[in-house]
Amino acid sequence: MQAVLIDGDGIGPEVTAAACRVVAAAGVKVDWIRAPAGAAAAADYGDPLPDETLELIRRYRVALKGPVTTPVGRGFRSVNVRLRQGLDLFASVRPVTSLAGVTTPYENVDLVVVRENTEGLYAGLEHEVVPGVVESVRLVTRAAAERIVRFAFELARARGRRVVTFCHKADVMRLSDGLFLECARAVADDYPFVLFDEKAIDNVCLELAADPTRFDVLVMENQFGDLISDLCAGLVGGLGVVPGANIGGRNAVFEAVHGSAPDIAGTGRANPIAVVRSAAMLLDHVGRHEAAAQIERAVAATLQAGVGLTPDLGGSGTTATLTDELVRQVAR
Amino acid sequence: MQAVLIDGDGIGPEVTAAACRVVAAAGVKVDWIRAPAGAAAAADYGDPLPDETLELIRRYRVALKGPVTTPVGRGFRSVNVRLRQGLDLFASVRPVTSLAGVTTPYENVDLVVVRENTEGLYAGLEHEVVPGVVESVRLVTRAAAERIVRFAFELARARGRRVVTFCHKADVMRLSDGLFLECARAVADDYPFVLFDEKAIDNVCLELAADPTRFDVLVMENQFGDLISDLCAGLVGGLGVVPGANIGGRNAVFEAVHGSAPDIAGTGRANPIAVVRSAAMLLDHVGRHEAAAQIERAVAATLQAGVGLTPDLGGSGTTATLTDELVRQVAR
Ligand SMILES: CC(C)[C@H](C(=O)O)[C@@H](O)C(=O)O
Ligand SMILES: CC(C)[C@H](C(=O)O)[C@@H](O)C(=O)O
Repeated sequence: MQAVLIDGDGIGPEVTAAACRVVAAAGVKVDWIRAPAGAAAAADYGDPLPDETLELIRRYRVALKGPVTTPVGRGFRSVNVRLRQGLDLFASVRPVTSLAGVTTPYENVDLVVVRENTEGLYAGLEHEVVPGVVESVRLVTRAAAERIVRFAFELARARGRRVVTFCHKADVMRLSDGLFLECARAVADDYPFVLFDEKAIDNVCLELAADPTRFDVLVMENQFGDLISDLCAGLVGGLGVVPGANIGGRNAVFEAVHGSAPDIAGTGRANPIAVVRSAAMLLDHVGRHEAAAQIERAVAATLQAGVGLTPDLGGSGTTATLTDELVRQVAR
Repeated sequence: MQAVLIDGDGIGPEVTAAACRVVAAAGVKVDWIRAPAGAAAAADYGDPLPDETLELIRRYRVALKGPVTTPVGRGFRSVNVRLRQGLDLFASVRPVTSLAGVTTPYENVDLVVVRENTEGLYAGLEHEVVPGVVESVRLVTRAAAERIVRFAFELARARGRRVVTFCHKADVMRLSDGLFLECARAVADDYPFVLFDEKAIDNVCLELAADPTRFDVLVMENQFGDLISDLCAGLVGGLGVVPGANIGGRNAVFEAVHGSAPDIAGTGRANPIAVVRSAAMLLDHVGRHEAAAQIERAVAATLQAGVGLTPDLGGSGTTATLTDELVRQVAR
C-alpha cells in the first residue's frame, strides 16, 4: 500500500522512522510518500503547509504525521488546524487507555475522545472591534454537529461498550450549544441500542478527574475537545503514549499530538510510542486490523516488560533500543 | 456585621443554615439579610433574580449564596451568570486544596483557580446567522484581561508561594488570546517578585491530570476557568467540599458551586461543607481572618476524624450531625 509520510520537525523524523520500522515488522509493506510540512517546509517553500502536501494526501488518502512546528511571527495559521480544515478531517479521534507498566493514579481507563475538528473557535474568525476589544467567533453548524455525533455513535457501536457522552454548555451558550445538543439528540434517536448521555462539559471535567473509568465515547465541540483530549492523556501517562487520528470522509491523517521537542531532537532520546500507535490506527483504518492489533500488543508488552524504555518512560534506553524491542515484540 | 443570604433552591436552605450556625460558633455575629433568587423567586417575583436581590447585595456588599436553579424554557439567562455580570464580580476565585480524610489520587494539592467572570463566551452574545448556523462571540477586552491578571498576581503575592500560571490558546485564537496574553505579560512586568508562567490551556489540562501539585495560582478566561475549576475540584473530592467566591471592586458573592440536588432536598443528607467553606472565605474577605481560619481548621479536623460525615463523604451521618461536629470543632 501507499501512504503519505510527514516526518515533521524536531524529533519528528526520528519517531516517524521508528514507526515505519514497526509497521514493516508487522508485515505491512508500505510505500511511504514523503511530504513536507512544518518549519523546514516554511524555509524551503515559503509555507509550512505547501499545497503539494495537501495534494499528496488527497491523492493517497492516508498520512502518518510527526509533530510539526508552525513558525511564529509571520502570520502563519497553525499547520495542524489548516491540515484538518483543508482536508475536511472533521473528526479528531483520541483513544485513551490505561497501559500496564505506566504508573498513573488510574487503571482501567478505556475511552475515546471524539472532537469536532473544523469549527467552533478554530474556524479562525476573529476581529478587533476597537483597539483593546476583540471578538472570536465560535461557529456551530447543524451539518457539522450532526456528522460528528453520528461518527461518535458509529464508533460506540463498533467498540461494543455502547455509551456516548455528549458534552456541552447549552445552559450558557443557549443558541450555539443549544443547536449542537438538538442535533445530538436527533442523531441519538437513530441509535436506540447505544446509551446516550448528555452532560455539562464542566461536570465531565470533574468526573474525568475523579473517575475516568466510567466513560466510553465522548463527543464534543472543537475547543472542548482540545482540553478534554489532553486532560485524558494526562490521566494515562501523557502525550508520549497516546495516539491521534484526524478522519474525514475521504482522507485521514494519523499523528502523535506531542510537540517536536527541539531540546532533545537528535539526542536519540525521543519516545516513538505515540507515533507508533498512530501508525497502528492508520493500519486499522485501512482494514489491516490484525497488523494494528499486533502493534498494540507489542506496545503493551514492551511497556509492561519495561525493556528499552526512553527516559520519559522512566527507562535509560533510546529511541533505537525502544524501537528494537517493539520490532522484536511485533515479530513474535 | 450585616451580610446578604441567598439560601437558594433544593438543599440550599439546609446547607446555608448549617453555614450560618458554623459562622456563629466561630464567634462572628452576622445579621443575615435574606434575599430571594432561583426557582422559588421566579415563582414569587416572575424573575429568578429579582432586582431587589441585586440592590440588597449592592447595599451590604457581601453575600453568601446556596445553589440556585435557573428555570428552563422561559428564556431566563443563568442566575449565576447574571449575578456575576450584574454586580461586576469580575474574579471567580476557587481555592482547591487536598483534604486529609478525603481519599483522592493526589495529595498536597494547593492551588487557586482565578477565572475572568464577566466576558469570554459568557458575555451572552449569540446569533443565528441562517437556520442551522449559529455564532457565539468570545469577547476579550484589554480592561478585563488586565484587571483579572492583576488580581491573580495580588493573590499570588498574598499567598506567598508566588507563581502565576496564565493559561491561553493564543496559537489558535491569535487575536483574542493574543490580546489577553499581551495584557498578562504587561501586568507580570509589574511583579518581578512573582514567577510568571504562560502555558497553553490544553497543556495545563494535561499537567493538572498528571500532577496538580506543582501549581499555585492559575488565571484564565471565563470558559477555560469553568472547565479548569471543575477539573481541579474533581482532583480533591468534588464540588461537595470546595468553596467558591465571586469578587468585584465593590461587591462579593460567596457560593458553593454544586447543584441544588433536588433528589436529596429535605432528606437531611446534604453535605454543607462547600457552603461552610465559602462562608469562611466571606469572613476572610471582610477581614475576620482568625474566624475564617478557625472554620477551615474545623473542616479539616472533622474530615480527618471522619465524625458525623454525610453519605457523599462516605459516612452515615446527616447535615445535622456533620454541622454539630463542625460547630464543636470550631468552638474548641
Ligand atoms: C497545535 C494545536 C493547534 C492543536 C489543537 O489545539 O488542536 C493541538 O493542541 C492538538 O490538540 O492537536
Ligand atoms: C451554573 C453555571 C452557569 C456556572 C458556570 O458555568 O459558571 C457553574 O458551572 C459555575 O462554574 O459556577
